[in-house]
Amino acid sequence: MRILSFDTSSRSGGIALIEDGRLTAECVVADVGAPSAWLLNGVDGFLKGLGRTLEEIDALAVGVGPGSFTGLRIGVSAAKGLGWALEKPVIGVSTLEALAMNAPYGNLRVCPVLDARKKEVYAAVFTSSGRGVERIAGDCVVSLQGLFELIDKTGSGPVVFLGNALGVYAELIEKNVNPAIIASEPLWHPRASNIGVIAFRDRGAAARPEDITPVYLRKSEAELKIQEGGRKAALLTLFKP
Amino acid sequence: MRILSFDTSSRSGGIALIEDGRLTAECVVADVGAPSAWLLNGVDGFLKGLGRTLEEIDALAVGVGPGSFTGLRIGVSAAKGLGWALEKPVIGVSTLEALAMNAPYGNLRVCPVLDARKKEVYAAVFTSSGRGVERIAGDCVVSLQGLFELIDKTGSGPVVFLGNALGVYAELIEKNVNPAIIASEPLWHPRASNIGVIAFRDRGAAARPEDITPVYLRKSEAELKIQEGGRKAALLTLFKP
Repeated sequence: MRILSFDTSSRSGGIALIEDGRLTAECVVADVGAPSAWLLNGVDGFLKGLGRTLEEIDALAVGVGPGSFTGLRIGVSAAKGLGWALEKPVIGVSTLEALAMNAPYGNLRVCPVLDARKKEVYAAVFTSSGRGVERIAGDCVVSLQGLFELIDKTGSGPVVFLGNALGVYAELIEKNVNPAIIASEPLWHPRASNIGVIAFRDRGAAARPEDITPVYLRKSEAELKIQEGGRKAALLTLFKP
Repeated sequence: MRILSFDTSSRSGGIALIEDGRLTAECVVADVGAPSAWLLNGVDGFLKGLGRTLEEIDALAVGVGPGSFTGLRIGVSAAKGLGWALEKPVIGVSTLEALAMNAPYGNLRVCPVLDARKKEVYAAVFTSSGRGVERIAGDCVVSLQGLFELIDKTGSGPVVFLGNALGVYAELIEKNVNPAIIASEPLWHPRASNIGVIAFRDRGAAARPEDITPVYLRKSEAELKIQEGGRKAALLTLFKP
């Protein structure tokens, strides 16, 4: 089973081809720019370089978040569009689980953290084990205080942190989690190969393209503004003559 | 410090750009073919894609083995040639250490194994720790029996295995090492990003291009034949009239 996977959930971009759980190729680029600009061209160049065509792909896998709202919209929409046009299933994968898989096969808790702005992070907790990583706390959006409580609740001992939120909060995390292991920066980028590997494992749950949705975990700024606008509009109705 | 790194030590090929220990971009391709064909074109396309030129690189890093003799010769020669022409230092990195870094930050022994043919493997032992991975046994070429003895000597508890020798010996290793954790196949490929990260750590030991040599660990077939030829020639001299 040939799975083309990509991730647009952060400022990094990644594309991979995984065949029956084995790596064929992978590229990851930090600060790659808007996925609207690189994604489809990137997929095209990537497959051409491998002498493959989209028609030879059996399924698409995409990081469904949590992560950048705009990035996720574009990545998930592209996966749905490609899947629909090619009549291939699409497998949505948690970006945080893919990230955790950058530190697999240890014997420690692994906590991927992505910057959610507004002093919050997208986070989850896994244990690295003989099977790679296993989830012990679901994807959530939390304040830093909430993150420390989550870490406390999931056990004791060292915790490996990885993800772009460390660019902002590494020091604070090191101060509050004892001991915190801050992974080397090249491991902070979600890898499309991990998305492909998880998708291959979860291939039984492949969905129709139209059924895949991004995992935002909270409302976007735009939605909050509409909501606020709605409340204001409701207030206005109160003062209607 | 901008380090361009690549690896040609196995059937996979990889190129990465690491800036001050941070990932800028990385590509890895399995079964990529002869490095003589892909390496320089690959570096050219990779840097162009990033809008960078070779002149902007501060140092080159290359996987010096152990691994495929032909692959290493080409990779190391290319690094030396580029370094010499550009007047940049070259940093040689153990392929096995780079491979071990695919399973960092745990609390287990990690044993990278590359197929050395002739029923032998290139191997080393590391512990994954809070600092990534730390070496506990040097790079060596050993029989499978030798590998099991090495594992016994370096401690107890689970051992994570990764590398292309698992394509041949995974079952035998699982039978003889208890418990052996066979890493997922996408982790069996040496990553050029790890080579760049190790090179950045070891940048103090950057060498003049002419001083870098591959780590073969044993004589090549050709050398063995010459040696054998030499012995035969010596025998002939005994029978000289």
